[in-house]
Amino acid sequence: MSDNKNFTLAVVPGDGIGPEVTAEALKVLDAVAAQHGVTFERTEYDLGAKRWHATGETLPDAELEEIRKHDAILLGAVGDPSVPSGVLERGLLLKLRFTLDHYVNLRPSKIYPSVGSPLANPGEVDFVVVREGTEGPYVGNGGALRVGTPAEIATEVSVNTAYGVERVVRDAFARAQARPRKKLTLVHKNNVLVHAGHLWKRTVDAVAAEFPEIAVDYLHVDAATIFLVTDPARFDVIVTDNLFGDIITDLAAAISGGIGLAASGNINPDRSAPSMFEPVHGSAPDIAGQQKADPTAAILSAALLCEHLGLTEAARAIEAAVEADIEERTGAARSTAEIGDAIAKRAAG
Amino acid sequence: MSDNKNFTLAVVPGDGIGPEVTAEALKVLDAVAAQHGVTFERTEYDLGAKRWHATGETLPDAELEEIRKHDAILLGAVGDPSVPSGVLERGLLLKLRFTLDHYVNLRPSKIYPSVGSPLANPGEVDFVVVREGTEGPYVGNGGALRVGTPAEIATEVSVNTAYGVERVVRDAFARAQARPRKKLTLVHKNNVLVHAGHLWKRTVDAVAAEFPEIAVDYLHVDAATIFLVTDPARFDVIVTDNLFGDIITDLAAAISGGIGLAASGNINPDRSAPSMFEPVHGSAPDIAGQQKADPTAAILSAALLCEHLGLTEAARAIEAAVEADIEERTGAARSTAEIGDAIAKRAAG
Ligand SMILES: CC(C)[C@H](C(=O)O)[C@@H](O)C(=O)O
Ligand SMILES: CC(C)[C@H](C(=O)O)[C@@H](O)C(=O)O
Repeated sequence: MSDNKNFTLAVVPGDGIGPEVTAEALKVLDAVAAQHGVTFERTEYDLGAKRWHATGETLPDAELEEIRKHDAILLGAVGDPSVPSGVLERGLLLKLRFTLDHYVNLRPSKIYPSVGSPLANPGEVDFVVVREGTEGPYVGNGGALRVGTPAEIATEVSVNTAYGVERVVRDAFARAQARPRKKLTLVHKNNVLVHAGHLWKRTVDAVAAEFPEIAVDYLHVDAATIFLVTDPARFDVIVTDNLFGDIITDLAAAISGGIGLAASGNINPDRSAPSMFEPVHGSAPDIAGQQKADPTAAILSAALLCEHLGLTEAARAIEAAVEADIEERTGAARSTAEIGDAIAKRAAG
Repeated sequence: MSDNKNFTLAVVPGDGIGPEVTAEALKVLDAVAAQHGVTFERTEYDLGAKRWHATGETLPDAELEEIRKHDAILLGAVGDPSVPSGVLERGLLLKLRFTLDHYVNLRPSKIYPSVGSPLANPGEVDFVVVREGTEGPYVGNGGALRVGTPAEIATEVSVNTAYGVERVVRDAFARAQARPRKKLTLVHKNNVLVHAGHLWKRTVDAVAAEFPEIAVDYLHVDAATIFLVTDPARFDVIVTDNLFGDIITDLAAAISGGIGLAASGNINPDRSAPSMFEPVHGSAPDIAGQQKADPTAAILSAALLCEHLGLTEAARAIEAAVEADIEERTGAARSTAEIGDAIAKRAAG
């Protein structure tokens, strides 16, 4: 662990555009480090498609234990069409999230006035999705019988516990309490997934009693997608399960300036293991290595990293730099590094 | 069964705005019936919240067997806040869909030029979602232990079979084949839900070999929500599982003129039981009984019903009447019945 001045980062650039955007995020972190009297010492981990092709490994336990010793993890993107779907996602990304108990997957959405939205009238969008990160349909408790035959059966089990739901719901309420609008919306599908859905609903109702100032709301996930395009300004804090959170945060990113701006933190609020910060976007292999990727989402993820490490001023400096940069975007093409340079320069003040 | 001239309909008006919109759909059916030399004889079934409050029944088996004897089912909407979430959905709506083997849940999306979309530039949207209707996370194979205690665990099992996936995938390919653009997109999440997702993917790849003219595409459900707001015109036929289909069809409705226009058919393509037609929208209890609901989705569902019964001209007449009505909408408020009257008049020719 660090002495609160010198932080250690495990860096997983990953696949596709991952290395390019990660380089810019690190550039910006260095730019604010000097300013705020801290250092970020990093160790890079070569994990992802290339490693898997070379060795068959996704994330060996020994390496996971190395990674665990750091103060935080910065991840670029994981996944490549040359690797069977699921191998890297389950064996690397989800292994990190689950083993390091990242039960809060934090995904803020904000519309910057100068950035176009596909919505004609998006309104003032500024909400955060608190997505559960260690349960639900993501647990990998599925299986298949008689694969490849006409009698095949494949199952996927969503596992939800009072333990797991309560801790993320509490985190979401605390975040809502700290925000001016003090609103929390539970998104689930409790009219169909009655067992999991009722556990979520009962938990939110119970915790709500301890937060009398918070206005609580419930939406089925299908209805939530409607409001995300017809009235996204209505949302403040959304709490939801792992799969619904995956779906609605991509939609949230799309309506608020695109996936190029969407940051995320996989947070272990108990700090029993390092938290991990990554852009919501994928590895985009089609544009990889061409300096075409927008590193803003990775840079904003670095701001969430600073925030989590207690470097609030550094986080604000990065966010302000991004905001200023976005406001001056003209639509002229800039390379990944040019965007990173511009934001780093501003962030350094 | 009918003699192809005199059709029997089981009508389930249901809750909230269900009875109001169903009345208009029946009005329009009567308007085209005369014109096309057919009759629709109906039996109304009093099912839904009121019935449940009065008797505790959702859908008694004897009544289900009565309903089964009809040529088709017209359903309004089901669900009311006074009934615990899930009781009517599982006990009535899903019981009908599952018992009557409605394995194709057909949900077309089309943007009429004169109808506003929340998207700034939606483009020419005209696609259909073929949502699986009898498997996936909707099967009700979940459970809970130690409910209400800190040790509660709740599960939901998604069940997927080669039998169930193949039949809906074949149906989707056949629909794509009959459409000018000949495109099919599978939507799933096979990088996380690997067992179910790979069954779906392998099935689509296998059936694709029999349809060489169809261009086949795969999207993760999260990415699909992005394209539904940034480039919905790219879609032609989407095939997907029960839960993903639920989510993306509400989003599809929202971007293409709103849930007031979205029709659906719960189809049993083998005709071993009657198919069921219903608007995608819910019971909207807040505006129920006030003649404020838009009956267009219910009326377009009646067009799908005609199509399914082989009354292609009647279906086209209803669709043309709706389209003409929509084109002349000025934004001035009309009652549910006024909209129904206007469309019925046009449909009668
Ligand atoms: C890559 C994939 C496993 C991942 C997820 O589904 O969580 C991604 O979509 C995300 O949202 O971070
Ligand atoms: C009411 C509910 C059970 C239903 C579903 O989830 O299928 C509805 O949302 C729909 O899309 O028809």
